[in-house]
Amino acid sequence: MPSERSQLLGRSGKKKWAQKIKPLRVSLAALLLLLVVGSVSINYFQGGIRRESKKKNVIFFVTDGMGPASLSLTRSFRQFRDSLDIDDILNLDKRLIGSSRTRSSNSLITDSAAGATAFSCALKSYNGAIGVNPTKDPCGTLLEAAKLNGLLTGLVVTTRITDATPAAFSSHVDYRFQEDLIAEQQLGGYPLGRMVDLMIGGGRTHFYTAADSEYGSAGSRADGRNLIKEAKKNGWSYVGNIHEFHKLQQGANVSLPLLALLADYDIPFDIDRDEAIYPSLEEEAMTAVNALSKATENSDKGFFLMIEGSRIDHAGHQNDAAAQVREVLAFDKAFEAVRKFAEQSDDETILIVTSDHETGGLVTAKQLGKDYPEYVWYPQALLNASHSGEYLSKKVLSYTGENKEEFIETSIFERDLGIVDYKRDDVKVLAELTSLGDIADKLNLMVSDRARVGWTTHGHSAVDVNIYAYANRQSVWHQVLDNLQGNHENIEIGQFMADYLDFNLTKVTELVKKTKHSPADHKIELLDNIAHHSGLLNDL
Amino acid sequence: MPSERSQLLGRSGKKKWAQKIKPLRVSLAALLLLLVVGSVSINYFQGGIRRESKKKNVIFFVTDGMGPASLSLTRSFRQFRDSLDIDDILNLDKRLIGSSRTRSSNSLITDSAAGATAFSCALKSYNGAIGVNPTKDPCGTLLEAAKLNGLLTGLVVTTRITDATPAAFSSHVDYRFQEDLIAEQQLGGYPLGRMVDLMIGGGRTHFYTAADSEYGSAGSRADGRNLIKEAKKNGWSYVGNIHEFHKLQQGANVSLPLLALLADYDIPFDIDRDEAIYPSLEEEAMTAVNALSKATENSDKGFFLMIEGSRIDHAGHQNDAAAQVREVLAFDKAFEAVRKFAEQSDDETILIVTSDHETGGLVTAKQLGKDYPEYVWYPQALLNASHSGEYLSKKVLSYTGENKEEFIETSIFERDLGIVDYKRDDVKVLAELTSLGDIADKLNLMVSDRARVGWTTHGHSAVDVNIYAYANRQSVWHQVLDNLQGNHENIEIGQFMADYLDFNLTKVTELVKKTKHSPADHKIELLDNIAHHSGLLNDL
Repeated sequence: MPSERSQLLGRSGKKKWAQKIKPLRVSLAALLLLLVVGSVSINYFQGGIRRESKKKNVIFFVTDGMGPASLSLTRSFRQFRDSLDIDDILNLDKRLIGSSRTRSSNSLITDSAAGATAFSCALKSYNGAIGVNPTKDPCGTLLEAAKLNGLLTGLVVTTRITDATPAAFSSHVDYRFQEDLIAEQQLGGYPLGRMVDLMIGGGRTHFYTAADSEYGSAGSRADGRNLIKEAKKNGWSYVGNIHEFHKLQQGANVSLPLLALLADYDIPFDIDRDEAIYPSLEEEAMTAVNALSKATENSDKGFFLMIEGSRIDHAGHQNDAAAQVREVLAFDKAFEAVRKFAEQSDDETILIVTSDHETGGLVTAKQLGKDYPEYVWYPQALLNASHSGEYLSKKVLSYTGENKEEFIETSIFERDLGIVDYKRDDVKVLAELTSLGDIADKLNLMVSDRARVGWTTHGHSAVDVNIYAYANRQSVWHQVLDNLQGNHENIEIGQFMADYLDFNLTKVTELVKKTKHSPADHKIELLDNIAHHSGLLNDL
Repeated sequence: MPSERSQLLGRSGKKKWAQKIKPLRVSLAALLLLLVVGSVSINYFQGGIRRESKKKNVIFFVTDGMGPASLSLTRSFRQFRDSLDIDDILNLDKRLIGSSRTRSSNSLITDSAAGATAFSCALKSYNGAIGVNPTKDPCGTLLEAAKLNGLLTGLVVTTRITDATPAAFSSHVDYRFQEDLIAEQQLGGYPLGRMVDLMIGGGRTHFYTAADSEYGSAGSRADGRNLIKEAKKNGWSYVGNIHEFHKLQQGANVSLPLLALLADYDIPFDIDRDEAIYPSLEEEAMTAVNALSKATENSDKGFFLMIEGSRIDHAGHQNDAAAQVREVLAFDKAFEAVRKFAEQSDDETILIVTSDHETGGLVTAKQLGKDYPEYVWYPQALLNASHSGEYLSKKVLSYTGENKEEFIETSIFERDLGIVDYKRDDVKVLAELTSLGDIADKLNLMVSDRARVGWTTHGHSAVDVNIYAYANRQSVWHQVLDNLQGNHENIEIGQFMADYLDFNLTKVTELVKKTKHSPADHKIELLDNIAHHSGLLNDL
């Protein structure tokens, strides 16, 4: 394996050559290095010239489930909330360069697994595929190629770190539902060994069992292992709560590899997030960026980091417009913080943002009855809502008092959602619902109707999604535009990143061939069934 | 007025100077001209260098009501129908450069009037405004500036030529419903005189009265005038049917000014169009382009032409997915024909395509029941439909036979829509409906449901719409990208065209101040009422 690996360290095979150098050559190299460093120092101090390194950072953002309508919705919501001018647009708006076609190999509408594999392996695969091609053979990913080429690597999400998008960069399994196996591979349990240097997100559940309460109370592994304990033994630093997260000092105090699992499942929607318990996406992202930047400070290689606005998708699945606009705003803020980092960085850095697909069939207009609609939608209705349907459904269901209907009226409708024009029937229906999903659907519909925001599905849709980009070098910016300006297949985005970093993904594919990726046969149907009829629906 | 006008002939005021030249100067000018022509001829013949003129053509396309979802829908429909590769995309797809924010001055969701005024006057106005600003003062338009600067001008549509989009370039009225007045102004009945050189489309109805049957049978003017007769007297050539249209020889045999009114209201949807009666949008567009090109052949000024895919919007209003994809394909074909013309033209020519807004809240996914949806949509269902709901509703309502239910089953469902899985209830409901709109809605819903295509409204939505462009000169292409690449307010598109052509719209505004633009006060409410409760709903 080592010899195969070394072939991957750049197309020119420099590192392979480097392994063979003799002491004499080392001395020569040292002399050369001295001359080069001296020369750079002279240039740096004499001419005041900004020091330019040759290393490259790629930060790839996935706005999971964010379609074009989310932008108009969120932009107008923000302008309304903050009384801004119509030209005061989102940070993302300023970086639009094109759009991406999203269909998978087996459907006109992709899921997040095929969507992320299109980015990570630069190939079309089937819905459900995690880092495997249409014939279920593992395919080398950008993240693996980065690590094998000497870059550092990271994954930042707000949902489970074992969910489809991060998984497709860091593991190979036939079905996205094999999250126990995904967690193993992410920590290095597969032929390539550890490829990820940093993981921040939720999803602790797949790292320990139900019987094991050392790191949480909702473990779900089936094999009795505690991967957190194993990871710590193998040298990972582990962060399991906000206090430990703060000790990372926004990345200044990180020991890699880092495993930060800040929730058993999802980090709450930004609209519900208690900042005493959970960090924002911006805090997660900047911790990662600063840590990877610091760790590559003295290297001639940069880092590859994937940052996902994971739960824009969940707000879409739940048809929760109030949560959606806050998720997009939280993402937009994180993006801008990272962009400013890149702007000030001495290292060549590109940022690419795109979605895997649209979720929910969101439309910024809804006709409520047979009467022809006015051409309006009302941001005020989204501003009135101070919590997501997901959050409030738990509040409704956990009510144990004696007057549930009054509670729904005053606490849920009036205080939490700012809805005063509810009907008697709304109260009665809600009081009788017994499933979290049904309660959330009812509340979210009441908010969306008042905003005149429409949804056509709890699943995904086939609309093209936007591509945004930023580069801190003019020449690289032109390279980005030459390749990604306009309308593109999603796989072209992955291929561009591979080409830009001079990676050969085919060679990586050779190395991951022997990865164990299939579930026990009898489990496939079961897994499929669970996914389609459980709370996991949010995450498809 | 002439002196005011002459100020408009370019910012440099060259023509004003030209009016003062004395015979001696004329001779000098003639001598110079000879030298220049001689020199050009020598260059042309000696070096085989392509002759480059300095004139500019701007062809502005409006894809009325086409949002981002229409593209994915139509692209996949075409790939499915023609068994094409996923990389075989629409002509438009290849020209995507950005997106446009569409809100009007008084609503987050614009109508076509404010949308078109944003392009024509480069300013935000209120919904309903035709070439007037938010205080209802007439604003100078691109088309007027073009004519005043010596360019030729044209309007091509598939709906009424007096409808909002073409009207906003060629008239000034407070409310879009004042179509009788719009028609007058388009023919020159306002302070500037005739500004339009060519009009091709439908909408004959507002040019003559109900009592007058010389040019059709559905006149609706209220003032007893026959504008067609008047126009012919004033030198317009008139084309009123497909036979006369064919005599134009695709523009080779056009005498300007040309008024071609090929339908009393709309030209039928492309899915229903009988080519023995109505031309395609491509034929209309190429007739206009060739005629204007020929007429400016020996001029140093080019032309400004607005071409609208008008009825993409109508398919959206009617939630007719089968008609929608054919409208977008017809537009795409017309665009490509014009683009090829531009590619081969010796004159500097730019094409800009954008929508005023999205219509219908179209989503390429629809969840039919409470069960979580599969990630699919079915182009086959749209391919099965051989007519629009609009067309079939008339067929249903005009049925006079004895077995209406059987007729609906075999003729409408099975033959025209290829629907065999209809329910008994569908037949019964449809047989009892008595309004064209209700019948069309029912049929369109049956098709959309089978395709799993969703709609949230019969009105408009606020999603950003795409911007496409083409230029036949590299330098101009960069100018287009510098100004319109990325995300922009709709008014920036109008302003770019004005800047590119060196027009001063403010000066034109001075000249149209005295235009009669308000309806008699007592009629406003009535007009508003009619618009909201009649067949005109399609056209909002």
